[in-house]
Amino acid sequence: MALIVQKFGGTSVGSIDRIKNVAARALATQAAGNDVVVIVSAMSGETNRLLKLASDLTGMADGREVDALAATGEQVTAALTAIAIQAAGGKARSFLGHQLKVLTDSAFTKARIKAIDAQKLMETLASGTIAVVAGFQGVDEEGSITTLGRGGSDTSAVAVAAAIGAGACEIFTDVDGVYTTDPNICKTARKIERISYEEMLELASLGAKVLQIRSVEVAMKYGVPVHVRSSFSDAPGTWVVGEDALESVTVTGVAYDKAEARVMLVGVDDEPGMVANIFGALAAENVGVDMIIQNASSAAHKTDVTFTVNKTDLAKTRLVMDHIALAVRATGIAYDEDVAKVSIVGLGMRSHAGVAAQMFRILADERINIQAISTSEIKVSCLVATRYTELAVRALHDGFGLGKAPVKQG
Amino acid sequence: MALIVQKFGGTSVGSIDRIKNVAARALATQAAGNDVVVIVSAMSGETNRLLKLASDLTGMADGREVDALAATGEQVTAALTAIAIQAAGGKARSFLGHQLKVLTDSAFTKARIKAIDAQKLMETLASGTIAVVAGFQGVDEEGSITTLGRGGSDTSAVAVAAAIGAGACEIFTDVDGVYTTDPNICKTARKIERISYEEMLELASLGAKVLQIRSVEVAMKYGVPVHVRSSFSDAPGTWVVGEDALESVTVTGVAYDKAEARVMLVGVDDEPGMVANIFGALAAENVGVDMIIQNASSAAHKTDVTFTVNKTDLAKTRLVMDHIALAVRATGIAYDEDVAKVSIVGLGMRSHAGVAAQMFRILADERINIQAISTSEIKVSCLVATRYTELAVRALHDGFGLGKAPVKQG
Repeated sequence: MALIVQKFGGTSVGSIDRIKNVAARALATQAAGNDVVVIVSAMSGETNRLLKLASDLTGMADGREVDALAATGEQVTAALTAIAIQAAGGKARSFLGHQLKVLTDSAFTKARIKAIDAQKLMETLASGTIAVVAGFQGVDEEGSITTLGRGGSDTSAVAVAAAIGAGACEIFTDVDGVYTTDPNICKTARKIERISYEEMLELASLGAKVLQIRSVEVAMKYGVPVHVRSSFSDAPGTWVVGEDALESVTVTGVAYDKAEARVMLVGVDDEPGMVANIFGALAAENVGVDMIIQNASSAAHKTDVTFTVNKTDLAKTRLVMDHIALAVRATGIAYDEDVAKVSIVGLGMRSHAGVAAQMFRILADERINIQAISTSEIKVSCLVATRYTELAVRALHDGFGLGKAPVKQG
Repeated sequence: MALIVQKFGGTSVGSIDRIKNVAARALATQAAGNDVVVIVSAMSGETNRLLKLASDLTGMADGREVDALAATGEQVTAALTAIAIQAAGGKARSFLGHQLKVLTDSAFTKARIKAIDAQKLMETLASGTIAVVAGFQGVDEEGSITTLGRGGSDTSAVAVAAAIGAGACEIFTDVDGVYTTDPNICKTARKIERISYEEMLELASLGAKVLQIRSVEVAMKYGVPVHVRSSFSDAPGTWVVGEDALESVTVTGVAYDKAEARVMLVGVDDEPGMVANIFGALAAENVGVDMIIQNASSAAHKTDVTFTVNKTDLAKTRLVMDHIALAVRATGIAYDEDVAKVSIVGLGMRSHAGVAAQMFRILADERINIQAISTSEIKVSCLVATRYTELAVRALHDGFGLGKAPVKQG
């Protein structure tokens, strides 16, 4: 008898027929000898419909009320899924955030889970009942409804799996797993069988939008095995697991992100505190900065500072720069929205020298100019002109042999 | 500084613009020096949309899950109304059934309120904030969401008004008050300025669907003055109050109901226990019986028993009668769906003899045959052929002088 959490996203519960499919799958999993907890998202389109009602009233709606509004989407699906399981002859009971005591902080619209009371769930499961939990929502100390941000149902699922000590958290979605890169631009992209939490985090934050980043963090913290798979087939998908359960390969995947813009401050005074001034001013305006590159100082105590921000923050960034450029005595500012970040991710980089050099060589062979470089322990990112994105992704995917079965590292 | 509860029904919150009107009205009431609690229904059509989703899955959905589903309608409106008040510059905070601790029994889809915790509301009001409460919903001892049945938001409003000791409970609706009869069939129908709880109960149960019956019972029990009025104008509507606040008139209103069917058992044995057998069998099948008439026994220990049931229960009634007719040795059974119940209601009947006789005379003058009669302390109902309904209503309305200003009783 195993304990299994199954999470179904918006498209997987997007119609009455699809909800019936979810019920059938949960019942089949139970019939195979498992205790089953189902976590559901809002029916596809519903969250947007609800948020539009609020935005029709004002562009600045109070977060507490927006969360009370948005949380109804998952409440509807949870009730319908329980009814569907019952209609198919099973036992089911729905649970909302406040009923399970999914305790969060009070950061409305992006709350973080602090605790989950597993007792009610365990009692429900003990009676042979399938527990259906509304994802995305929690409740704060005051009893106000909170939500966990876009994709938050993934985090609900992993947190519930951690709280009840589930053997696996299955994330059913409209893709059949995590790929070595975007199959839309690279025909040889291959489904990854197993990937580490760390690699998944890098891939998620680099633009592979299969799992909410926060859910991977929680899974890593509590060691919950996550299985990303298709709700429209029985084929196995991708397991996201601890790295001790993996044969590490040099490069696991290639990601890209066209959402960033590049900012360059030219000829600033190379003095202590200069970069602190620049990025302190941006942080004060809540502008998140991704890559930061400071070139080595040349002559005359002058240097160049390059960084990237999300394109949606560019207007705010320009206002900040107009002030800060004077303070750091920059001789010029350049903005470039025509950039894309292409990244390779892989645990094997830690022990395998020369991976970055190999990446630069592959790009150079395609005559793609690298505008900026940023590295972490298990990834290398290069900024290139947008028009080279697909070419770069395909070249790296083939160059690192990702279209073939994984090469095992000794 | 007065405490005022304002309840808005589905059509009054049926669009974003109408929700803005609700916000404006609540703010104006607050600006006039009152503390304001707003109770809202689901946007018109929303409850039906939600229930259809459940009925698309099964005709026998579990009440607990149906309530979790249906309660989202009011949750959406409560959040939107709070946002609308804030967008108009006011302070507002939404409350759901479980947040206010609207404790009910566990009779899902028709729960009854047992208690309301007034403290959170009073704290909210004390800070100059308008409290917006989701109507129709409560929570049982286990924390499951319950709903109060169709029209339940009226009862939510009156119960909240009672809990906080409000000076008035205003019910905003799409009609401008309670009328002496249906204005669609009687042009001289007149808006009633003040009516007693008892009369309102009789009118409500007789088919004037302005207020949920249960809400009037709660208002009577706690002495909450209820003001039924239009959400589309500032004109005063109808006050429903205790009878000590009223000049009693003989007849206050004329109601009709076409929902019932007549059943007649002919020539049954006139023995002790006979009617107990008949109505016990119907009760066992959950068939509610309204009028019951047993004619005085004639010869040979035989009698006739006539009663009315809701037309929707007629099929079930026929099954019961097929069995019971043998048991009581009836010589025949007749069913008639072509009947309507026409009633006059008025506190003054208690002290004023001859009102029933006057009703029968008015109907006789119009050559309308009376098929059955039923009376209570403050009402007289007559069953007539459906085609006479409108004629009977108009004749009674004019015959008792309801088109004119009320006649005061000494």
